[in-house]
Amino acid sequence: MSDLIQIAYEVICPPGVSVEKLSMEIALEQTVEVPLECIPTREIRESVAGQVLEIVPLRMEQHQYRVRIGYHPDNTAYQIPQFLNLLFGNISMKKNIRVVELSLPEQLVNRFSGPRYGIAGLRSLLRVYNRPLAATALKPLGSDPARLASLAEAFARGGGDIIKDDHGLAEQPFCPFRERVSQCQEAVTRANSRTGHNTLYFPNISGSWEQMQAQAEFAVSQDVKGILLSPWLSGPDFLRYLAKQYPLVIMVHPAFAGTYFHDPLHGIKPAILLGTLLRWWGADISVFPNHGGRFSFNPQDCRELSLALRRPWGCVKPAWPAPAGGMSLDNIGEMKKEYGKDAIYLIGGALLKHSKDLSGSTRVFMETIHRAFQKSPEEPARERVPALSPAGTEKPAGRILEHLPRLEDFRWTGREPLEYKAEKQVDFKAITRHELVGQYGENTGFDLRYFQIEPGGFSSPEKHRHEHVIICIRGNGILRQGDNAIHLKEHDIAYVPPFKEHQLKNESEQPFGFFCIVDHVRDKPIKPGALKK
Amino acid sequence: MSDLIQIAYEVICPPGVSVEKLSMEIALEQTVEVPLECIPTREIRESVAGQVLEIVPLRMEQHQYRVRIGYHPDNTAYQIPQFLNLLFGNISMKKNIRVVELSLPEQLVNRFSGPRYGIAGLRSLLRVYNRPLAATALKPLGSDPARLASLAEAFARGGGDIIKDDHGLAEQPFCPFRERVSQCQEAVTRANSRTGHNTLYFPNISGSWEQMQAQAEFAVSQDVKGILLSPWLSGPDFLRYLAKQYPLVIMVHPAFAGTYFHDPLHGIKPAILLGTLLRWWGADISVFPNHGGRFSFNPQDCRELSLALRRPWGCVKPAWPAPAGGMSLDNIGEMKKEYGKDAIYLIGGALLKHSKDLSGSTRVFMETIHRAFQKSPEEPARERVPALSPAGTEKPAGRILEHLPRLEDFRWTGREPLEYKAEKQVDFKAITRHELVGQYGENTGFDLRYFQIEPGGFSSPEKHRHEHVIICIRGNGILRQGDNAIHLKEHDIAYVPPFKEHQLKNESEQPFGFFCIVDHVRDKPIKPGALKK
Repeated sequence: MSDLIQIAYEVICPPGVSVEKLSMEIALEQTVEVPLECIPTREIRESVAGQVLEIVPLRMEQHQYRVRIGYHPDNTAYQIPQFLNLLFGNISMKKNIRVVELSLPEQLVNRFSGPRYGIAGLRSLLRVYNRPLAATALKPLGSDPARLASLAEAFARGGGDIIKDDHGLAEQPFCPFRERVSQCQEAVTRANSRTGHNTLYFPNISGSWEQMQAQAEFAVSQDVKGILLSPWLSGPDFLRYLAKQYPLVIMVHPAFAGTYFHDPLHGIKPAILLGTLLRWWGADISVFPNHGGRFSFNPQDCRELSLALRRPWGCVKPAWPAPAGGMSLDNIGEMKKEYGKDAIYLIGGALLKHSKDLSGSTRVFMETIHRAFQKSPEEPARERVPALSPAGTEKPAGRILEHLPRLEDFRWTGREPLEYKAEKQVDFKAITRHELVGQYGENTGFDLRYFQIEPGGFSSPEKHRHEHVIICIRGNGILRQGDNAIHLKEHDIAYVPPFKEHQLKNESEQPFGFFCIVDHVRDKPIKPGALKK
Repeated sequence: MSDLIQIAYEVICPPGVSVEKLSMEIALEQTVEVPLECIPTREIRESVAGQVLEIVPLRMEQHQYRVRIGYHPDNTAYQIPQFLNLLFGNISMKKNIRVVELSLPEQLVNRFSGPRYGIAGLRSLLRVYNRPLAATALKPLGSDPARLASLAEAFARGGGDIIKDDHGLAEQPFCPFRERVSQCQEAVTRANSRTGHNTLYFPNISGSWEQMQAQAEFAVSQDVKGILLSPWLSGPDFLRYLAKQYPLVIMVHPAFAGTYFHDPLHGIKPAILLGTLLRWWGADISVFPNHGGRFSFNPQDCRELSLALRRPWGCVKPAWPAPAGGMSLDNIGEMKKEYGKDAIYLIGGALLKHSKDLSGSTRVFMETIHRAFQKSPEEPARERVPALSPAGTEKPAGRILEHLPRLEDFRWTGREPLEYKAEKQVDFKAITRHELVGQYGENTGFDLRYFQIEPGGFSSPEKHRHEHVIICIRGNGILRQGDNAIHLKEHDIAYVPPFKEHQLKNESEQPFGFFCIVDHVRDKPIKPGALKK
């Protein structure tokens, strides 16, 4: 496979311009932005400037061609804003150029980690395996949190899978984010405890640059498992950041992106913009306008987009297509034929029309889906969602072991002690980490680690959503939690609650060693004080 | 003036759809997203759902109309992502709708502060009053920092006004941001010290969500006075954040926004997207493709866009149009006719073609500009650039005073003591602030304040680019700077350097009072530890 990014464009040559000249202009415009003769060195000409790889005539009466250009991945700085600039920055302002194919070298693909959950991970979370998922949106804008919470509760009681905020719900004075999120999540939790289902509520993250991260933190603190984001409003790199930082299912909405698809001679194919790219950057679910509804996509756009989301693609997990708009109880058969079971059926107005008995109409909707898809009693193997490791921490070497005898010097057979953190930081001292179980391919929901702190040493002060269970097994030490100091001696156990600031220290003259048990899927620690308000 | 946001759309009615129905669909789609009959309350129907205000036929043979819809500003949550969603979120995915006019109620306009410098402020900074500004870009991509720095130096020595990074320069391995910025700024400073001009260097802010703020901080720390940003790549709200947070001139680039203008029947007019909106959110300079160059704007687009940037608009300062592409030494006459003197002439390839003597060709360019515009020796009154006040701090009441006698109890005539900070925070104690000079309409480059800390009290720990000069005049206290503790007694003076963490405390039994002198235009303090890496 080529080491270059390859982009195919459909272009129309203006009168009097050869396709060779036009292709070269694109290759230069998107990189060096100077004419060929002004490139100062051979190296820049050969490895930075775009390279025209192929020109294929399409519709000659329109002077239309398909042009393939190769770009060195270093040009992207391996970052999303500059990647988009390379893809369609300046040439978005030229006439009649459309991005129709994108092929990325593995070296670049691996810079972003793709969906955290993807199709199999979200199925595990919901415990739904053999049918499509059913979702709806909380509307209309103007409703207060209590009204939305009662809609959410009714949908959950009817057995729906996902209820998301409408993407226009932001920080409006009539429906502030925090009140909405806590009331809706509480309502859904209450319904779940009655039904035994696991309906999920996805609030919409939309706010100022300073607020969005705090919104995500707040959602996590309320036990929310997923969110809705409009990356073309928030800035697309924020999608990648959310996916990396929080254990949230991410559903993305295409608001404001429609111009890229309006003109068949210009823009970026939906399969690329809403499919390949959003999946690559971390979307678990991509919402798009289904054909036949009130928007402008055609059946082929929808097919290609679903394929881009679900096709096998190296380590990047498949993501969910979520066709929306115009769905009703009557067209589940068509939806099945078109999208199959690995899709999310978004039903809006058709359910809400019956909002006097939303539970009842959701129940009918769910029964129709159940009837249309064969149920099977076996669950597939549980999907393993990778842990969020501290930045720069690599997977430890080793294999699954069934017996790990402890050695004399507080090591364990088959497990080598590691640096406490791979990052160079100065806020810890004299501490080592032993990854014992969970990082070697096991399927446990937790990791077991051993840490040892030498006299005078300490761990980084940290806080995070995930909890710690700590068992002291060697010497004694201090666990600081907020303003509290807990003294730990052999076999003492301690529990660190969510978002409690904590740090471990050894003020004795002997090594202090303890086990620490954590969820395998967990959020990244935040340094106290680094949290954005 | 109406209290509603008024948006005029040009639409084409599909066969069989009345313009009344289409208009109502837009009004509902952009707000409640449910059919009229599903709106649950009269209040939502009347004050949240969009209201069709006017329908005017345009080209009847095409079934084209102009439709004006009013929206309550609360719908926007007074935030940029949701504002854009209201403007053109879902309807971007419908056919043949174009935003052609935008009128904003004052209540909404005042939520964002517009350009910090604008036309007059940037003229003051450059000390150039009676001619357009000349700018160029550092290229090509692939050059290392040393090559770009030498281009920057040559342009500055030739007397140019602004040299910006090419908008494709990001964090590429061959040209990392920090090396580029420090070398280019150093080169420009060196040239300025020889020429006596004040050429400015604008680095390009482009990176991951986590990095962009740190890039801006770094630029400020290197004495950079302005930056380039592509808001349609970074996320548009980041423009507002930068404008609010840093004393930087902001030049915005339209990369990736071209699809909004490609189809004359769809999208958003350039005058609105690149003019009104970017100016409103804080852009001092908006770059756009000049007609006749290699891009698709026509002369009317360019005229309307310049007007949108420069027209009088309440408290929002006029911003600079920066037409780019195809500029050469030969068309300055045309540029003068079209854009006049309040514009930035961006010249790229035509200068760089002569890069063996870039200083020389810049000099010729500057002479051509000087000849084309009459010089006048008088400088206009200095433009007052407003201070960045801590969030929530309001202007103190009072007027300019020429004599402020001190009263017995360490107050000053005509000046009332204020809360230390208007925000509710818990990181300070027993401290009051007296704004003495600078906040009442004076034209000083600095503010003089008096602070008093009672026994046991302290100020917030802070760091920022702006320096403090402190003069102890009552009791004694401690200035902590990093790890240093400086003991201050009556008439002692202290200096706090840029970005040095500091805090003031009173550990004595008497009040501790001191003057603190700061730049009037200054950056906002950052809490130590809150800085993103």
